[in-house]
Amino acid sequence: MKFTASAIAKLLDGHIAVGNKDIEVSSFAKIEEAGVGQITFLANAKYEPYLYSTKASIVIINNSFEPAEQVNATLIKVKDAYTAVAYLLSFYDTQKREQLTGVEEDTIIHKTAQLAPDVYVGGFTYIAKGVIIGEKSKIFPQVYIGENVVIGSNTCIMPGVKIYDNTIIGNHVIIHGGTVIGSDGFGFVPQSDGSYTKIPQIGNVVIEDYVEIGANVCIDRATMGSTIIKKGTKLDNLIQIAHNVEIGENTVIAAQAGISGSTKVGKNVRIAGQVGIVGHLSIADNTTIAAQSGITKSITEVNTTLMGAPASNHYEALRSQAALRQLPDLLKKIREMEKKIESLLIL
Amino acid sequence: MKFTASAIAKLLDGHIAVGNKDIEVSSFAKIEEAGVGQITFLANAKYEPYLYSTKASIVIINNSFEPAEQVNATLIKVKDAYTAVAYLLSFYDTQKREQLTGVEEDTIIHKTAQLAPDVYVGGFTYIAKGVIIGEKSKIFPQVYIGENVVIGSNTCIMPGVKIYDNTIIGNHVIIHGGTVIGSDGFGFVPQSDGSYTKIPQIGNVVIEDYVEIGANVCIDRATMGSTIIKKGTKLDNLIQIAHNVEIGENTVIAAQAGISGSTKVGKNVRIAGQVGIVGHLSIADNTTIAAQSGITKSITEVNTTLMGAPASNHYEALRSQAALRQLPDLLKKIREMEKKIESLLIL
Amino acid sequence: MKFTASAIAKLLDGHIAVGNKDIEVSSFAKIEEAGVGQITFLANAKYEPYLYSTKASIVIINNSFEPAEQVNATLIKVKDAYTAVAYLLSFYDTQKREQLTGVEEDTIIHKTAQLAPDVYVGGFTYIAKGVIIGEKSKIFPQVYIGENVVIGSNTCIMPGVKIYDNTIIGNHVIIHGGTVIGSDGFGFVPQSDGSYTKIPQIGNVVIEDYVEIGANVCIDRATMGSTIIKKGTKLDNLIQIAHNVEIGENTVIAAQAGISGSTKVGKNVRIAGQVGIVGHLSIADNTTIAAQSGITKSITEVNTTLMGAPASNHYEALRSQAALRQLPDLLKKIREMEKKIESLLIL
Repeated sequence: MKFTASAIAKLLDGHIAVGNKDIEVSSFAKIEEAGVGQITFLANAKYEPYLYSTKASIVIINNSFEPAEQVNATLIKVKDAYTAVAYLLSFYDTQKREQLTGVEEDTIIHKTAQLAPDVYVGGFTYIAKGVIIGEKSKIFPQVYIGENVVIGSNTCIMPGVKIYDNTIIGNHVIIHGGTVIGSDGFGFVPQSDGSYTKIPQIGNVVIEDYVEIGANVCIDRATMGSTIIKKGTKLDNLIQIAHNVEIGENTVIAAQAGISGSTKVGKNVRIAGQVGIVGHLSIADNTTIAAQSGITKSITEVNTTLMGAPASNHYEALRSQAALRQLPDLLKKIREMEKKIESLLIL
Repeated sequence: MKFTASAIAKLLDGHIAVGNKDIEVSSFAKIEEAGVGQITFLANAKYEPYLYSTKASIVIINNSFEPAEQVNATLIKVKDAYTAVAYLLSFYDTQKREQLTGVEEDTIIHKTAQLAPDVYVGGFTYIAKGVIIGEKSKIFPQVYIGENVVIGSNTCIMPGVKIYDNTIIGNHVIIHGGTVIGSDGFGFVPQSDGSYTKIPQIGNVVIEDYVEIGANVCIDRATMGSTIIKKGTKLDNLIQIAHNVEIGENTVIAAQAGISGSTKVGKNVRIAGQVGIVGHLSIADNTTIAAQSGITKSITEVNTTLMGAPASNHYEALRSQAALRQLPDLLKKIREMEKKIESLLIL
Repeated sequence: MKFTASAIAKLLDGHIAVGNKDIEVSSFAKIEEAGVGQITFLANAKYEPYLYSTKASIVIINNSFEPAEQVNATLIKVKDAYTAVAYLLSFYDTQKREQLTGVEEDTIIHKTAQLAPDVYVGGFTYIAKGVIIGEKSKIFPQVYIGENVVIGSNTCIMPGVKIYDNTIIGNHVIIHGGTVIGSDGFGFVPQSDGSYTKIPQIGNVVIEDYVEIGANVCIDRATMGSTIIKKGTKLDNLIQIAHNVEIGENTVIAAQAGISGSTKVGKNVRIAGQVGIVGHLSIADNTTIAAQSGITKSITEVNTTLMGAPASNHYEALRSQAALRQLPDLLKKIREMEKKIESLLIL
């Protein structure tokens, strides 16, 4: 896809301040790396020197910015360069993805599956019986979709995702490569001889609209009922969501965090990387949990920040950390105090 | 699959206390969510109100239970409702899986591979030369099975699992989606110029009977010899098992735990989520390790519980944690004591 | 592949000290497990008793070693048995892999893709448009290679790896099963209603020569520009590398570690398992980070060792840990001191 400066200016509600309105670009790059046929932007004054040396064909700048030297690139002025670029990239991504449509060769699609006519299905993807996929959804190569899975519209399932039977996925969802949705929850009954008997896991996973899930994530099916990821929630890579967990709306969870079985996480919660949360807890709305924390108790008060393993209120945790750093010196001081006391007692 | 109330009552060694012996069900649900054509159960008195409003066609209840109000569902009475349901679900799962048999279209199976006649092989699965697969095993779509892999009977390999050359897998094993078995152990020799030379990893992985492995787990092949997961052991999702590790019988390991190279874990050990164990250790039988613990020394005494990073006996760990919480106040107190001592010294 | 004792002796620059120069072996094993037709080695005196009982056909030993008893195996003497075996295994691995060549049935390769004539492509692998793959590279089954990906020569992509558009991979790289390269970085802008808007991630991933990456690793594409893994760096399994991270040459990272967005890790760094590093930091060359550490500040001094969460210099961390273990006893002692002071004040 190629775009002219004038088409981009129009799209961004901007104007061409300097240069050639017909010049074409086909890709993006950072201002210090951009070359001919590429578009870039300048939003941070720190990078201004690059404006005068860049080989980019087009640079997007703020209306308020006046170049101090000569510029070879075509300049498009907009209200806010950073926001304009984000919009432009999003537009480009969408355009590119929109073009994907139709079923490629070498797919297996069960005759009972119902796919909207414009759905894209990549090669080596396997779609089992009873599956329903809504319009404009894109299923990339090598995806597995088990029996009776329902996928909404405008949803994008990236290469190699594995979705077990009966999973329900909403609209405008993105799931990245290697993620497994609906594998058995980890439930076993210990027997008197030390062995374990499996508890059948016959629930499913429900993923609501506008959820994004990273790569190599695991979301287990419920024992009964559903493991639920609510609307607008974003999960990073390598996250573990155990059976019967519920995660509220617009919660963000960073990479390698793990949430144990039956825990309910509220909405607008922020969970940093490598956090662990034990099972059967409730985490209140708007909670913030610092990286590597271990949550062992329910959080009942909204808007709190937790830290540490086991986690406490982050002011307390910081106080404990600071105190711990003083501890070796404290040991010395106490030995001195002891001597003084002994000398007093001798008197 | 549909089942009548009378067939289910017979299977569970129960009887129909109320309702229609010919009513049919085809799926399960929680009592608060069940609808027509579904079966559910009541084991916990807390849920009794739902019994009188449920739309389920059949409810399984304890022999000892007498409804206080009118019930629309057909009631099957059994000795223990919870156990009966677990048995029923397991039966249902088994029935459903038993039906899977035969080789689907679009598979690659080397001509030297030996598959029992009733083995199921899903589409896009790749089976290399010399592979042997025992009777009633199910290999789901998009699985990779490398050269000379041996898989026993009644084993289930879920979609997208990757099994490298020479792996040996027993009977009644379950391996979930995305798991990688037999990738190279992480072994490199530092060179004088700062670079690393790879140590070839030519061992294999052995997985014994009745082992269950979650999704996106990694089990590395041994440098020489075997990485071994013994009979009845259960691994959750996203676990790392390094080269030459041995894990004893009936051990359970929760999600995101990692065990470093050459460590030997005993039998009936319980390892919680996100635990890390360093290499070349021995962990005694019946050890329990709390979540996020870091194990840096061998555990030689059986039946101990460890906690913390670095881990200690969990009584000590809890004592240290409690003491740490008192530390900031302690610092204040010591400052006061110092003043008092100074005042005494001045006297 | 079979090799005679004399061929192996020649390859290793050794000589046959005892036995039959024509005896053949086809595989390797540990000395305590080796059987007929296998080769093994003795480097550690602890294993000497096995030399006299082994069923191995050939044993490699040091020039300096003289057997104290009769040996049935053919003995090859070399300067250093351990190094010789490592070399031999590497040679064997290379020989075996070299034989893989050609495109298997059931692959999808876009007509614009350019593959060197001797490239191996396994079944069910998908290669999108504009892809370039260099000579002697091996692409195993079920791999996904997105648009415009460039892969160098002698590189090995194991089964089920997913490589997103525009990724650049060098020569002599190994990537293990299930790893995802180039998925979207985790970037969202919070909106006033609590929801999040996705920041398009349009950068790529660059992996330089001689890098090895374990199984089920995630390396996210940059927002703009590139996420870079430099020459000779080795990553273990289940590692998270976020967008815009740069990792220097010859750095080793153990399993389940995670590096947050835009952090720059130096060269010759050693990062142990389950370490977490927050975003936008710099880690100096030659830093060593102990397992499970949490790095919250940039490391500016080279050659330091860090430990703990939050991490500090490992001497300080060990001092704090030791002090923490004394803390419960300290609390008792302070209570006693208080009493003594009170008694003095009363005097």
